Amino acid sequence: MPETPAGASNGAFWAIVPAGGAGTRLWPLSRRDHPKFLLDLAGTGASLLQDTFARLAPLASGGILVVTGVRHSAAVTAQLKAPPGEQPACADLRVLAEPSPRDSMPAICWAAAVIERLDPDAVIGSFAADHVIGDPARFEACVREAIAVAGTGELVTIGITATYAATGFGYIRAGDPLGLPSAPSARAVLEFVEKPDEATAQAYLDTGEFSWNAGMFVARAQVLLDLLAEYDPAAATALRALAAEPERLDELWPTVTKTPIDLAIAEPAAAAGRVAVIPATFPWDDVGGFDALATLLPERRPETQPGLRVLGDAEVLTVAASGLVASTSDRIVALVGVHDIVVVDTPDALLVLDRARAQQVKAIVDELASRGRTDLT
Amino acid sequence: MPETPAGASNGAFWAIVPAGGAGTRLWPLSRRDHPKFLLDLAGTGASLLQDTFARLAPLASGGILVVTGVRHSAAVTAQLKAPPGEQPACADLRVLAEPSPRDSMPAICWAAAVIERLDPDAVIGSFAADHVIGDPARFEACVREAIAVAGTGELVTIGITATYAATGFGYIRAGDPLGLPSAPSARAVLEFVEKPDEATAQAYLDTGEFSWNAGMFVARAQVLLDLLAEYDPAAATALRALAAEPERLDELWPTVTKTPIDLAIAEPAAAAGRVAVIPATFPWDDVGGFDALATLLPERRPETQPGLRVLGDAEVLTVAASGLVASTSDRIVALVGVHDIVVVDTPDALLVLDRARAQQVKAIVDELASRGRTDLT
Repeated sequence: MPETPAGASNGAFWAIVPAGGAGTRLWPLSRRDHPKFLLDLAGTGASLLQDTFARLAPLASGGILVVTGVRHSAAVTAQLKAPPGEQPACADLRVLAEPSPRDSMPAICWAAAVIERLDPDAVIGSFAADHVIGDPARFEACVREAIAVAGTGELVTIGITATYAATGFGYIRAGDPLGLPSAPSARAVLEFVEKPDEATAQAYLDTGEFSWNAGMFVARAQVLLDLLAEYDPAAATALRALAAEPERLDELWPTVTKTPIDLAIAEPAAAAGRVAVIPATFPWDDVGGFDALATLLPERRPETQPGLRVLGDAEVLTVAASGLVASTSDRIVALVGVHDIVVVDTPDALLVLDRARAQQVKAIVDELASRGRTDLT
Repeated sequence: MPETPAGASNGAFWAIVPAGGAGTRLWPLSRRDHPKFLLDLAGTGASLLQDTFARLAPLASGGILVVTGVRHSAAVTAQLKAPPGEQPACADLRVLAEPSPRDSMPAICWAAAVIERLDPDAVIGSFAADHVIGDPARFEACVREAIAVAGTGELVTIGITATYAATGFGYIRAGDPLGLPSAPSARAVLEFVEKPDEATAQAYLDTGEFSWNAGMFVARAQVLLDLLAEYDPAAATALRALAAEPERLDELWPTVTKTPIDLAIAEPAAAAGRVAVIPATFPWDDVGGFDALATLLPERRPETQPGLRVLGDAEVLTVAASGLVASTSDRIVALVGVHDIVVVDTPDALLVLDRARAQQVKAIVDELASRGRTDLT
């Protein structure tokens, strides 16, 4: 349901897609050279990055800028130039390659500065490359509300409905409704808070005022960069200079503060009353591990193999067994008497995991790293 | 402790090794074309067949005859001609290839008939190719007692100490001691009984009179064949004819009764009071499944990875996990939060099994067979 943005006349909408993070807890599917966003984790034949692109292309009248590490830029480009199936066209697609990882503020604000030069009235929105989002129509409606609010000069975030006392996300505390006709669900943001402990998370949940911070920010490019100029003037100057003179990348990039955008901009802007939130009405998952992955995938054959989820083409036989099999090979997999098991079958590494211990996969990756097994991580 | 056999002068001792059976419950390690006896299940670098050969060669002053299916005779020959490490020499090694499987009576009695022609006074002993036996010195002492009793014209079996109420084995019921100076532990056999149900097995165990029948039979070749001639004259005639005229194999073999030696000879001979038993003093296991295999293998690193057994060279990382990993690849295997798990990693099939359900592996093989997946069974 597209709306005409309220307030100042906007330029086009540009999507910024930070594509970073290894997804350690999805090892051995995800590797440093084949991170989570490049994987087909939904079993759709498309990677999370490709799904993100397909979701944003209809909205991004200006274009899409993907910001990724230099080691992944070729793979990102390849996936986006040759997407599976019918994909919506994109007005302008650019891949920015970071010489080194400096967290999300430099990534997003570099892209915003590039867009600001192309289209001074542009509205940008940042959306991670490795999240799973259901119900594209509701997603689009939320983003259009955010765009409308961004037209009034606010920094706008989309708050994910908190469904349990998660300790792995930061939280957004909402205040009063803004009462904008073009964005009826928009509210002021009172504060951003860092990842809480479980008791604090539960307390947040109980108030009903908190949503999860999934790093979705929508603003006029100029507004975002002006906020940065206020809180970190050197960074704003460097990134605007970089947008003007791309050949200075290696010189300027290392000078930009390495920091998340939440800390650099969202928190101080919220404290100054300049941030709004649109509550998400769409299903969302950051696929933070195999437990989440098992929840996302449908049962393959609910009638004959209840509780069995399969990612990939492997044939799976079961005798009194349930769980998730994720396979990149076509070997047959047989499960006997094991429940809530996770089996991840890749050419050089095999993981067998109790689903309830999904977060401990990271310990295996740490162990491999400590042994210098860069071939496996 | 070699002794001079009592009674009639004996010829040399010849070992007969029936090498048959697929070992379905060890799938996917064992396959029809790569059955249990060809596998290195003890992690020694030698197959069970090679271990059996090494154990028998010092005893078999006459030689060793392996009886196997025609599809396995080349692999059997290859393993025995090129055994790993230092192997004892064998006076005479022959491989008899059965055109079709006809159970253990034809296999053992064919070999006995061949030996009878070579050495009319020979004593033969049959020992399965796929059992694990510890303490070779005690094994040898038991066999020498059995040879001594066989010299008196008895059919002699070696009874395995029953350590639990097993339902997978037949039982041997012992009677009075024979009082032979050269075989002080020999007793009469009252009866052989078929595989019991669990209550019956427990009752057997409680009496203290029963041992397990592991198919170990020692007798003068002539005695064994004369017993057969008494109970199945046509079979004895055919097998002695086959020994004299090997070229008649395809003609004679299908005429021989397809039956186990227990039923054909041991049971009626015991009923006639012509069987003795030597109680085994050595550790024995028929490796009837992955549960048994996990018990047989030592822990790889008891201090840092207690409860982890590994067959093969795979590197295994664990986080709060225990179980058995049997791998024919050098892929790394990571176990997280799983206990008493069995992971069997082969190039075309992967099995993940709860150790307590080890006997249900057969259901997977049955399912594959019903799907016509002969490539995997």
